[in-house]
Amino acid sequence: MSVLHIKSGLYTDHYELTMAQGYFLTGKKNTRANFDYFFRKNPYEGGFVVYAGLDNLLEAIHNYRFRKEDCRYLESTGFNNKFIEYLKSFRFTGNVFSVTEGEIVFANEPVLRVEGNIIETQLVESMILNVLNFQSLIATKAARIRLAAGDRLLIDFGLRRAQGLGAIHASRAAIIGGFDGSSNTYSARIFGFVSTGTMAHSWVQSYNREIDAFREFVRLYPDSSILLVDTYDTIKHGVPNAITVAKELEKNGHKLTGIRLDSGDLAYMSKESRRMLNQAGLEYVKIVVSNQLDEHLIKSLLDQEAPIDSFGVGTALVTGKDEGALDGVYKLTHVDDKPSMKVSENITKTTLPGLKKIFRFVDNDNEFYADGIELENTAVPEIIFHPYHPEKNCRLKGYSHEAIIEKVMDNGKVLKGRSLDESAKYAADRLAQLPAESKRFDNPHIYKVGIGKELMDLRNNLKEKIWKR
Amino acid sequence: MSVLHIKSGLYTDHYELTMAQGYFLTGKKNTRANFDYFFRKNPYEGGFVVYAGLDNLLEAIHNYRFRKEDCRYLESTGFNNKFIEYLKSFRFTGNVFSVTEGEIVFANEPVLRVEGNIIETQLVESMILNVLNFQSLIATKAARIRLAAGDRLLIDFGLRRAQGLGAIHASRAAIIGGFDGSSNTYSARIFGFVSTGTMAHSWVQSYNREIDAFREFVRLYPDSSILLVDTYDTIKHGVPNAITVAKELEKNGHKLTGIRLDSGDLAYMSKESRRMLNQAGLEYVKIVVSNQLDEHLIKSLLDQEAPIDSFGVGTALVTGKDEGALDGVYKLTHVDDKPSMKVSENITKTTLPGLKKIFRFVDNDNEFYADGIELENTAVPEIIFHPYHPEKNCRLKGYSHEAIIEKVMDNGKVLKGRSLDESAKYAADRLAQLPAESKRFDNPHIYKVGIGKELMDLRNNLKEKIWKR
Repeated sequence: MSVLHIKSGLYTDHYELTMAQGYFLTGKKNTRANFDYFFRKNPYEGGFVVYAGLDNLLEAIHNYRFRKEDCRYLESTGFNNKFIEYLKSFRFTGNVFSVTEGEIVFANEPVLRVEGNIIETQLVESMILNVLNFQSLIATKAARIRLAAGDRLLIDFGLRRAQGLGAIHASRAAIIGGFDGSSNTYSARIFGFVSTGTMAHSWVQSYNREIDAFREFVRLYPDSSILLVDTYDTIKHGVPNAITVAKELEKNGHKLTGIRLDSGDLAYMSKESRRMLNQAGLEYVKIVVSNQLDEHLIKSLLDQEAPIDSFGVGTALVTGKDEGALDGVYKLTHVDDKPSMKVSENITKTTLPGLKKIFRFVDNDNEFYADGIELENTAVPEIIFHPYHPEKNCRLKGYSHEAIIEKVMDNGKVLKGRSLDESAKYAADRLAQLPAESKRFDNPHIYKVGIGKELMDLRNNLKEKIWKR
Repeated sequence: MSVLHIKSGLYTDHYELTMAQGYFLTGKKNTRANFDYFFRKNPYEGGFVVYAGLDNLLEAIHNYRFRKEDCRYLESTGFNNKFIEYLKSFRFTGNVFSVTEGEIVFANEPVLRVEGNIIETQLVESMILNVLNFQSLIATKAARIRLAAGDRLLIDFGLRRAQGLGAIHASRAAIIGGFDGSSNTYSARIFGFVSTGTMAHSWVQSYNREIDAFREFVRLYPDSSILLVDTYDTIKHGVPNAITVAKELEKNGHKLTGIRLDSGDLAYMSKESRRMLNQAGLEYVKIVVSNQLDEHLIKSLLDQEAPIDSFGVGTALVTGKDEGALDGVYKLTHVDDKPSMKVSENITKTTLPGLKKIFRFVDNDNEFYADGIELENTAVPEIIFHPYHPEKNCRLKGYSHEAIIEKVMDNGKVLKGRSLDESAKYAADRLAQLPAESKRFDNPHIYKVGIGKELMDLRNNLKEKIWKR
């Protein structure tokens, strides 16, 4: 089962098809090409990105087909019959190289490379950008919220405010970034985690009295009830009613799981609720809060020592507030066995040519120190240069290194699937290796990403050659 | 074919299922309930919302089913067997009342009402919010961009930066809000519009010389080529090469359609390109621009008299930048034949009880003047009151009125489907009726939305009764 759900070669931009047809009709269909995926800016003014979406992406590329209705559409819009015939048996047969899902990555690193004929490598562009940009954006947001929340329980409540069907993969990416679960039962089923939830105001309103609503709920769910206490008045009614019901439950040998606060000053409300619960001997009853939370509000609540056990996070998580999109791009770097690049008026939009690998340098405490990008089949760089300001450079002697790009698809075949749990665990482990200064929210330390000498020389020579033309 | 694509009853929040099971096991499955959908704030600090998503939503509600794999998931998470049996034959059998898709609506109006048994009305909550919040957010953004762009061509380029599968319905909502087309071929196919596109830098890079890339492209597409001119240097190479090719095309009896600018100062670049094209006698060649555009940038470009014929808009359109989500909610208003409401510490979060209708009052110039919300089966209000500040009120004598809510689903059956074109046309027509002051971007006039006396009295009485309890 494809969890991308879109089994259509048309899940792409029109111009990919126009260009693909062009390559096909001009006899370039066997031309070899390489494209890099990278983004230019860490989102949220932050210091890192959690790379997510790879597993879904590889499956989608593997299943990328043009079906009857797709071909009919292309016919109706004037595409060439021979090209449509070609698409009918189209399969992606190229190779994909990538960092591991869950890896911590940084701006301007070519974290994924696609190698194949120019048609197949072009056609998958839009899908690659669509999948990786979004899941990485959300996994990164989730990781930031996890950093703020410590080891408290984090649940995704975002389905209702998500960007349409974007909800589905937002929940998956949230798990990779460090969330414990989601209210989204559909995502839970297809991605294999367990959904969870509390109750809504409508449950309480559907009874004449709040206490009746609570009593009926705990009768049904004696060991898993989380009572929403703010339908009428949290402190005067909601919490006292929850306490009454919890004490009744105790008599029957059960324990109320928790209460949920969804409005008002959550710092004040949680402290007051905790005090009231404790006074009644209900130290074990947990406090869950929700309502427009993000990493900054959670940090603020915990800085105020709000006694909160769990956070439900919706809009800000699943829409990646205030960013909306990771600015990932997909650029041609090598064609017809020659390195290629785009030169721009804007130096930071000039791309890195050639086939590259990334080395991660690690210090003696096993913390990440710097990443170096260098051409394939060259030695590990001993010095790396800032991509645009080569006078800024950094020696790497004494640091150990690891190559963080590996082949993940071979001739169209996915080399190994990973479970969601594995990706989530990997992200957590790797985030632990990132120095604290790169993880803070305000003015984080810019992690060093540089290029090796061979790559720098190739880029400079090629740029000069292009300007001369 | 369901264009929502998710044919699973699990496309909901976990607590909807917990509560539904609760209603089922406590004998409330035939309890009648009514819920209202409304949002609390116009997005983008704007003065209106274009209501979108209804057609997809009704289809999704009509097709809402629990399939084998859904039931297996519910079994595995401990749901009750009798309840699961009930879900196996579950169909939505209620009624839906709504404003028309494409209607211009405002904060705090109950624009959609769902009536049915409490289980079915509860279960569809998350889907309603997910669909309407997103499509209305994007249609509104599209309408704002349309307001800025006048009658110039507007194309959605957002697939690559959209929030995952959210791309699909973003393209649809963009059309409703006033876009002419999209690069997203999948959405074009399933929603029945025509996709469009230009070329990418990779096409140019795949040739040794830019002019060869242009020549080959126009040879393939002699009557529809839009050449991307900024791969190396727009003014020195890109535009001159495009001009050369356009003149060659003329000799063969064809005309170059346009050039695209995707970087740099678009005001300067478009003026310079226009001048060069005109000098070569190519007044007919259109200028298309793209690169991080939104309504404010487009307005600024046109204020500077940039000679642009068409805009490609991506990220800001399909993610609803800088908003991310419309804050729509779904609240129980009537249960067991009694009006119901949520009372909140925060007065603006107190809901409007009962079964309601909306009247739109229109002035002699056929412009919208005010909306009045009143209880069903009461007379058209002659005066409406601010929902929270009743001392602010407004007399409606002399204005004509129309009821803008109608039944759109009857016992689970969709009453009439509308085409995407119809919704788009309706939105454009209705937006034309909205006074200009409510459409401006900076501090728009707050359109009057008030409640009638009967509704105000019901709310006040009910609130008092709740506080007394």
